Amino acid sequence: MQIGFIGFGEVSRTIFKLLKNSEINLATSDENRSNRTKEFIKETGIQLYPTFEELCETSDILISANSPSKSLKIAKKYGSKFNGIYLDLNNISPKTTFEIDSYVTNFVDGAIIGKIDVEKPIIYLAGKNVSDLSFLSDYFKIRIVSKNIGDVAILKMLRSIYTKSLSALLIESSKIASDYELYDEFFNILELTEGDDFKTKSQSRIKNTLNSSKRKSEELEEIIDFFKDEDLEIVKASLEKLKKIK
Amino acid sequence: MQIGFIGFGEVSRTIFKLLKNSEINLATSDENRSNRTKEFIKETGIQLYPTFEELCETSDILISANSPSKSLKIAKKYGSKFNGIYLDLNNISPKTTFEIDSYVTNFVDGAIIGKIDVEKPIIYLAGKNVSDLSFLSDYFKIRIVSKNIGDVAILKMLRSIYTKSLSALLIESSKIASDYELYDEFFNILELTEGDDFKTKSQSRIKNTLNSSKRKSEELEEIIDFFKDEDLEIVKASLEKLKKIK
Repeated sequence: MQIGFIGFGEVSRTIFKLLKNSEINLATSDENRSNRTKEFIKETGIQLYPTFEELCETSDILISANSPSKSLKIAKKYGSKFNGIYLDLNNISPKTTFEIDSYVTNFVDGAIIGKIDVEKPIIYLAGKNVSDLSFLSDYFKIRIVSKNIGDVAILKMLRSIYTKSLSALLIESSKIASDYELYDEFFNILELTEGDDFKTKSQSRIKNTLNSSKRKSEELEEIIDFFKDEDLEIVKASLEKLKKIK
Repeated sequence: MQIGFIGFGEVSRTIFKLLKNSEINLATSDENRSNRTKEFIKETGIQLYPTFEELCETSDILISANSPSKSLKIAKKYGSKFNGIYLDLNNISPKTTFEIDSYVTNFVDGAIIGKIDVEKPIIYLAGKNVSDLSFLSDYFKIRIVSKNIGDVAILKMLRSIYTKSLSALLIESSKIASDYELYDEFFNILELTEGDDFKTKSQSRIKNTLNSSKRKSEELEEIIDFFKDEDLEIVKASLEKLKKIK
């Protein structure tokens, strides 16, 4: 069996490391790569094909892990002619996932969630032929969400609703606490019910959100656009909050 | 030294139990009580005065713990003529706290936070003469917030902003998850970052909020009224969310 990687960034390299001592043949192509990347790929010892077309022809599974913006183009170009399992691990929206599914026969949408540099990273998978990937359980903690394409992407959005709105709530409430000179006491009183790491965790959430409020606002806009028929009071208020951040 | 209790409900009884073997004299009055309550108070062995007036005359500290709606009336009636420390432990708003302060000379606002039936409950205190209550540290974990009357009540509101808005967020996000048949997966994926008890804790928050959405809405309205000059996007959205609950 051969797994072909389209894209050889952090996700692909992690999977390569986890599987390189298995009996599975791991391959990629250095077509159109810079000399620097070619050199780097060569050093890992992964099997190389001169073109992605040849990679696709010889592989049983393709893993697309490059960037969300390229995922659809790659799926059209290589996935549409491919009959094996096509696993997309880019951080894509449900909309892009559905579009890819319209081009690819045996599509599986997936995501590595949580820490990637651990003994067994957690991989979420959804799709009709997801059981063909059950061998991955030797290397990953597999969470099969459903047979419905898009469910992994939707789940990521749901997680995003929670974490981003929580950050917005923390920004709002800690700001008022600070205005009343009760900033530390605010976190201390909540640690009684929210756990000892509440303050550290919350402050890192706030910092993180303040530093990337523009990107997070865009993600919330995408979420509101996708779930438009739902009741989204809190998500909308969170977007409003994040948009105020200069 | 004598502590006089005005009101002998759960809070007063807990303090009585904690302090009854100390050298402090603990007293209350059974004036205007039902026979049943009189009998119950008598059984505890607390010293009884025929009137609250006599209780006040003989006490060094008064503890008002009855109900938020009666706290102001009691403060006016007994606190205004009292020169010792007047500690209010009712769950009152900052507004009521400021009003009480205008009648009472040595006022301390306080709250028992968290579990009350533990070896050392946590008591929050604020006020000019709060150091006169430092002897309580033998029986409580004392958190002195500041010398500013109202800070305990404001802190309770800040905590309330966080917990009520979080519940509203959980109601919103888990409802969407449920609509997409991803309810369990939604909680499972968040447990990876939010801790193992996230699902249990969240479901209990949701249940609790759904069961008392009217009262919680009123509390949020009071919060919005008090903090009206602040940016309250999330709190307002949470109120909107809770008002939708039938």
